[in-house]
Amino acid sequence: MSSRTVIRGGLVVTATDELTADVLIEDGRVVALAAHGSAYAEGWTADTVIDATGHYVIPGGVDAHTHMELPFGGTFASDTFETGTRAAAWGGTTTIVDFAVQSVGRSLREGLDAWHAKASGRCAIDYAFHMILSDVNESSLKEMDLLVSEGVTSFKLFMAYPGVFYSDDGQILRAMQRSAGNGGLIMMHAENGIAIDVLVEQALAAGRTDPRHHGEVRKVLLEAEATHRAVQLARVAGAPLYVVHVSAREALAELAAARDQGLPVFGETCPQYLFLSTDNLAEPDFEGAKYVCSTPLRPRDHQEALWRGLRTDDLQVVSTDHCPFCFQGQKELGRGDFSKIPNGLPGVENRMDLLHQAVLDGHITRRRWIEIACAAPARMFGLYPKKGTIAPGADADIVIYDPNARHTLSVATQHMNVDYSAYEGRSVTGQVVTVLSRGETVIDRRRFTGRAGHGRFVPRETCQHLT
Amino acid sequence: MSSRTVIRGGLVVTATDELTADVLIEDGRVVALAAHGSAYAEGWTADTVIDATGHYVIPGGVDAHTHMELPFGGTFASDTFETGTRAAAWGGTTTIVDFAVQSVGRSLREGLDAWHAKASGRCAIDYAFHMILSDVNESSLKEMDLLVSEGVTSFKLFMAYPGVFYSDDGQILRAMQRSAGNGGLIMMHAENGIAIDVLVEQALAAGRTDPRHHGEVRKVLLEAEATHRAVQLARVAGAPLYVVHVSAREALAELAAARDQGLPVFGETCPQYLFLSTDNLAEPDFEGAKYVCSTPLRPRDHQEALWRGLRTDDLQVVSTDHCPFCFQGQKELGRGDFSKIPNGLPGVENRMDLLHQAVLDGHITRRRWIEIACAAPARMFGLYPKKGTIAPGADADIVIYDPNARHTLSVATQHMNVDYSAYEGRSVTGQVVTVLSRGETVIDRRRFTGRAGHGRFVPRETCQHLT
Amino acid sequence: MSSRTVIRGGLVVTATDELTADVLIEDGRVVALAAHGSAYAEGWTADTVIDATGHYVIPGGVDAHTHMELPFGGTFASDTFETGTRAAAWGGTTTIVDFAVQSVGRSLREGLDAWHAKASGRCAIDYAFHMILSDVNESSLKEMDLLVSEGVTSFKLFMAYPGVFYSDDGQILRAMQRSAGNGGLIMMHAENGIAIDVLVEQALAAGRTDPRHHGEVRKVLLEAEATHRAVQLARVAGAPLYVVHVSAREALAELAAARDQGLPVFGETCPQYLFLSTDNLAEPDFEGAKYVCSTPLRPRDHQEALWRGLRTDDLQVVSTDHCPFCFQGQKELGRGDFSKIPNGLPGVENRMDLLHQAVLDGHITRRRWIEIACAAPARMFGLYPKKGTIAPGADADIVIYDPNARHTLSVATQHMNVDYSAYEGRSVTGQVVTVLSRGETVIDRRRFTGRAGHGRFVPRETCQHLT
Amino acid sequence: MSSRTVIRGGLVVTATDELTADVLIEDGRVVALAAHGSAYAEGWTADTVIDATGHYVIPGGVDAHTHMELPFGGTFASDTFETGTRAAAWGGTTTIVDFAVQSVGRSLREGLDAWHAKASGRCAIDYAFHMILSDVNESSLKEMDLLVSEGVTSFKLFMAYPGVFYSDDGQILRAMQRSAGNGGLIMMHAENGIAIDVLVEQALAAGRTDPRHHGEVRKVLLEAEATHRAVQLARVAGAPLYVVHVSAREALAELAAARDQGLPVFGETCPQYLFLSTDNLAEPDFEGAKYVCSTPLRPRDHQEALWRGLRTDDLQVVSTDHCPFCFQGQKELGRGDFSKIPNGLPGVENRMDLLHQAVLDGHITRRRWIEIACAAPARMFGLYPKKGTIAPGADADIVIYDPNARHTLSVATQHMNVDYSAYEGRSVTGQVVTVLSRGETVIDRRRFTGRAGHGRFVPRETCQHLT
Repeated sequence: MSSRTVIRGGLVVTATDELTADVLIEDGRVVALAAHGSAYAEGWTADTVIDATGHYVIPGGVDAHTHMELPFGGTFASDTFETGTRAAAWGGTTTIVDFAVQSVGRSLREGLDAWHAKASGRCAIDYAFHMILSDVNESSLKEMDLLVSEGVTSFKLFMAYPGVFYSDDGQILRAMQRSAGNGGLIMMHAENGIAIDVLVEQALAAGRTDPRHHGEVRKVLLEAEATHRAVQLARVAGAPLYVVHVSAREALAELAAARDQGLPVFGETCPQYLFLSTDNLAEPDFEGAKYVCSTPLRPRDHQEALWRGLRTDDLQVVSTDHCPFCFQGQKELGRGDFSKIPNGLPGVENRMDLLHQAVLDGHITRRRWIEIACAAPARMFGLYPKKGTIAPGADADIVIYDPNARHTLSVATQHMNVDYSAYEGRSVTGQVVTVLSRGETVIDRRRFTGRAGHGRFVPRETCQHLT
Repeated sequence: MSSRTVIRGGLVVTATDELTADVLIEDGRVVALAAHGSAYAEGWTADTVIDATGHYVIPGGVDAHTHMELPFGGTFASDTFETGTRAAAWGGTTTIVDFAVQSVGRSLREGLDAWHAKASGRCAIDYAFHMILSDVNESSLKEMDLLVSEGVTSFKLFMAYPGVFYSDDGQILRAMQRSAGNGGLIMMHAENGIAIDVLVEQALAAGRTDPRHHGEVRKVLLEAEATHRAVQLARVAGAPLYVVHVSAREALAELAAARDQGLPVFGETCPQYLFLSTDNLAEPDFEGAKYVCSTPLRPRDHQEALWRGLRTDDLQVVSTDHCPFCFQGQKELGRGDFSKIPNGLPGVENRMDLLHQAVLDGHITRRRWIEIACAAPARMFGLYPKKGTIAPGADADIVIYDPNARHTLSVATQHMNVDYSAYEGRSVTGQVVTVLSRGETVIDRRRFTGRAGHGRFVPRETCQHLT
Repeated sequence: MSSRTVIRGGLVVTATDELTADVLIEDGRVVALAAHGSAYAEGWTADTVIDATGHYVIPGGVDAHTHMELPFGGTFASDTFETGTRAAAWGGTTTIVDFAVQSVGRSLREGLDAWHAKASGRCAIDYAFHMILSDVNESSLKEMDLLVSEGVTSFKLFMAYPGVFYSDDGQILRAMQRSAGNGGLIMMHAENGIAIDVLVEQALAAGRTDPRHHGEVRKVLLEAEATHRAVQLARVAGAPLYVVHVSAREALAELAAARDQGLPVFGETCPQYLFLSTDNLAEPDFEGAKYVCSTPLRPRDHQEALWRGLRTDDLQVVSTDHCPFCFQGQKELGRGDFSKIPNGLPGVENRMDLLHQAVLDGHITRRRWIEIACAAPARMFGLYPKKGTIAPGADADIVIYDPNARHTLSVATQHMNVDYSAYEGRSVTGQVVTVLSRGETVIDRRRFTGRAGHGRFVPRETCQHLT
Repeated sequence: MSSRTVIRGGLVVTATDELTADVLIEDGRVVALAAHGSAYAEGWTADTVIDATGHYVIPGGVDAHTHMELPFGGTFASDTFETGTRAAAWGGTTTIVDFAVQSVGRSLREGLDAWHAKASGRCAIDYAFHMILSDVNESSLKEMDLLVSEGVTSFKLFMAYPGVFYSDDGQILRAMQRSAGNGGLIMMHAENGIAIDVLVEQALAAGRTDPRHHGEVRKVLLEAEATHRAVQLARVAGAPLYVVHVSAREALAELAAARDQGLPVFGETCPQYLFLSTDNLAEPDFEGAKYVCSTPLRPRDHQEALWRGLRTDDLQVVSTDHCPFCFQGQKELGRGDFSKIPNGLPGVENRMDLLHQAVLDGHITRRRWIEIACAAPARMFGLYPKKGTIAPGADADIVIYDPNARHTLSVATQHMNVDYSAYEGRSVTGQVVTVLSRGETVIDRRRFTGRAGHGRFVPRETCQHLT
């Protein structure tokens, strides 16, 4: 028998509309929207009525870039699928797309199965997978087709990390050619890792071992260079391209130039590049290690360029690249050698709030907030309109959001499984009140009511941003 | 007592969503959308039920650039508000924004009142006004504020037509400064008319009098130059800018460059620049006169750049610049002197169909069709969400569109009051079936059921594309 | 009977070569260069032997932009041709190209004759004329051809100063078309004077009357805009273009973009833009008036762009725009109204030294110093190889320059007829020792030995930079 | 005892001057230039008097890119230093800079010694060496300093030819860093060879084995990409960069963009890219193999961009990349597999004539001809003013050139040791008459009078184009 929920009196905000409407949910999906106060809406009966008066009613966030339990540098990202998706829900995110990893010398299948095993039965919200290609060869190229048919429709390649995830330009070209045929979307970590490793070696040899040197050796020009190269290889292959975690103004300029030519080139940035900077990397007493990620944080003046890119749609998506490592015991592996600091930051819980703060700060509009955090990632990765919007037929992944609640980001109050917050002490306005995942309440007036295993694997269509 | 209409079973297409949903209309507004086939939707009762199975259900078109009854070159545009808005309805457009004209030496008030008088009681669909500033001075600058408060929130200036509509750069700067203060949006006809007039004089003196020379003297470089200049003046004034009827690749490049910098600069193109070319201007026996408009048609290879601009959002709006003059008796005024040919083309009836054809031709997506023809112009000119979308609370301006109907554009079948079609003999796929204007059926299965006077003046908010 | 001079032992520096060579001069022209110390050189006999050991032997400077006795704002530039050319010689400049002025409503002939009368018999060094077109019409267009045939082969137009020198875009286009036919070179003062005058009026009305507001209203964007417009008009006309006194980075960018396309577009800057800034305009007690010129001084960070433009050859020439007005009695006309301050700075005496200092500062090479100050202006304005180089057949306009002499620029020591120095107190290294003009010594070991009337009018060829 | 030569009555053309002057030569060097007809010049006595009336007197050509006897693809370039330098002299070139090759696993010293051994005692004209780095490691990096001190001041790296000459981005960065310290100039073969090899493999697998596929797989985008990457790596290293054999418009655009920013980035193109195209590669019966070189020939429309780049100084040098392989027995190695065709064209004899033809065709000026073929390569590679100009003190490497002689390029008349001409049947106007190398006549009125062993190794200064 079916369950019905009505959300009444909120301001429904999607990527394009802002309307005072009531939302009717049945069996986990949105059935109808009606003008608030209309006789029709008033007539709706439901098992559950949520009063959203004074609040926003927004699509659940889609975080298209997370790394739960990622093995990296001899340790593992500290959030499991259970803790990480629970934190996501707390932050108003109802879908994550995590990265399954192919190991060198192993098949995609093996890697994907391993990630299915990690996630299955543990997630509080829905999840999907991208696949990291660490070993492009005839066999793995063929497997790509299979994964697309299973709903794993995007593949990440690395121009950085030689010897680990790195693919050379020939492997990249082959994978792009394959994706041009099977509809997959290539996601690129665009940094010239070969050149960077020379600079790392030189820095360490010169005794420049502190975390801030991580930012100095991973130069802006080498992110821009790799971005340019990825674009040209995609053009040769006739394939679309999605560049992850764009951090540098000059890299963004490469994307903008490509897009001006009408090329199907897309870019993502992350809250850390919008709100943090090399000032953080330079924090004393090894505190900078908390902010070590790649691409690295950039000088503060890059932030304005990134905001502009989000406004001009040269960047389409804000994901978190959530990849937490505890300061104690994990980040500390790199004391005396910044290259041994595990790369990554926690953030899956903070994204929706930080971006709402950006609305208040005038960087983006309210609708653009929803677009870059919900609708665009859903479209980009083949989840639309099931995810990313509030419309008849969509999954009832809905967040009741209080735009006036003021709170402070802190390790003391967060739900991510990590011993620090990258935004410790930062005050923001706007907070999640209630979260529905496929109609089920997982956060109820700031109380967690979900459960591990509610979240399901979502097979994805191919990229919808192109069509 | 209220009237209710339900539209059932169509594919609702908006700028962002495509859903199989039923639409409930009450008292001229959309009340609810519900998943088609759901119990809720099935339960709706209505006075009128429209079966949209197999059809699209789309927002009525918003044509933000028409010139009904415009006095020009000693004659008048041949469509009155009555004939022109009726033709618009036939073509699936339910709102026009026409241009009231200030005469040199007269007030804005006088011009606006005159246009209100022309339109009032005669329109089949809703209408709004922009104001043409022909005489920028202290007095008219002050009047701008008043007009904004009356819902006339955009002002057109001309860098062409010296002695008629022309404003010099100082006048333009002053008007832009004023608009920066009052929220008005400056619309610019960007051609260097001072230089063009030299070339016109030289062409005529050299005996180059045929219509095709109209296209040759109004050079691409002089459209691009004026576009660049308008952008710089807007930057000095701190004002947004909307460039009308962009026709040249090089002019578009100026807009794209400005937008890459994050400037609030917008551009419109028109179907004639997307589908016609200088080949038409060169048609023999003075037939080229039918295609004389300014900016002029360009060589065919500019079309691809314009389509790309529409895809990359460097152009946001497609309007018609509908300004029909009969070949006989009007266009003929320019036999022997192309400069005397009244400038303008008919098109208000053809826009939605031509752009749907562009969807089929692969130039744009279905959603982008609705965006550039409905949602974006509505937002740009402060009509959203009343116009331009289908959502609870919006005006029920809705078109039932048959995406498979094939028909031929022709003077024989069109409803515009002009003796030729600019697209004579062109076959297109996709046709309006039924049109609702505020819930009232004005076209009913290809029969006109509307009436002069149904259409109301719509006061507009200021530009919503900025926020 | 002929006179012979030999210059021995110096380092001959031209735009391309640096050689230790002796120079033989006969009858005012260079006859031969020979390797210093060679038997041939040793064998030369001469009436005069100049020992240049330890010094540079360089071509006399060519200052292509001076305004002796210019009427402006109700007063006259304070240097006459006699005082100004004497000061030029002191500064190592042996040719000036001054601007004859057409008055509105008068012929070019009348203006040119007047300037011939002012200069004839008074100059210490050779001189030539450009012609300022203040009134472009059928008659003056025809006169352009005549002037070209008389060796006045360049014509200056103003996009600024409406009501005085201003030409509208139609007049500019016509003059460019004419120059495309007769080989003349259009020189452009590129500022949007129509827009600037609006800002001037607003500034004064708001009580912003100090000299620094001169710099604020003449905005960078309005110089860049006009530069762009001039380039486009030149393209339409098929004519080359020379933009005078480029001061803003953004204007330079327009030139660079045009040159990348291979267009025959050239640019000049002046020492004041390279060494002074808006900091000077902001000097208290009306001292800023000393630095009022148009285009205005820019913020200091524009300087690096200009130096780069000189290195990359996007700027080809450094002239002075020498147009001195005394602080007392002249600049003071603008107390309480910056728009009444006569526009112009003294500089003809300082150019060679300031640019040599730039060599020492690493901005340009030694050869580039000679190129931008001697060879390029000579070529640009049809004086090469008579002027601008040291080669057999060239006029013996030669400077013996001590690269190690350190001195201080000051009104106390300068020879220009003006009561202040724009570079007061600035210490520079490098100084003129001896100057020959057509073989005649006009400065002899820092003693003036020239005379009014030695200098001759030099009819010029058309621009040689194009061929 | 010294020998004296006088060249009388010719037009001396250098990169900057054109003068009717007599040239006096003593002991292999230019001693003096004097105005023709002057008493001084008339008084010169000499052992040899060359009458250059009606001819040009130009600096001997400097060909900065030749590969005599290069081992490649299992065979050797067919010109030895003896035959190749003789042919160079016939073509008006008096200096070559050839490439010594480091083999993988061997030292620079060993490679350089081998090339010294090949060249010593065999050359008809002077020669110098660049060094190809095939194996960048700690040891070879240190050797670079030594080579600079020996006058081998430039080092070529390859982004193409994996497994042969290829260096990865880390090796490139290290070599650039080293050159930033020792003054060496990095020369780059800029093609993404890793990606190209994928396309080669795919083409061959698909049966696309003809020579024209050589041009198709070595894509324009992959030349442009590598050029961009090389520029970015040079920026990171703080080193100047010289890109060899630029063939694609898009690659040139990367150089132009870098130079607009003031970066010390230089580019060379070759006659084959200016005069030949993919039309030649597509010649039937395997004739296309004659035109196989890398970078490959491009579609004809790239030529205009290259000419423009030469005019705008975005390209500074035209060298030949002379690397001849006989059609019979050598080019034929690639029948059935274009990847086995030895890469290279003959051209050392044709460069001066082809570029003079370009003067007549209006592509470049006469002075620019001398600049790109003589002066600029001499400066770029530290040979100026000894080579590349005619001035007191310079080596008397001088060509008497008849600008009116018409002749036809053909294997039948050429002196290069190869069985075809890449320009067979092409008629050009302009021909070498007499050639002096350090004052010694090696071509005397089109008779070879030189000898193997006259030519000497010339140690070079570091790049002079930067200073």
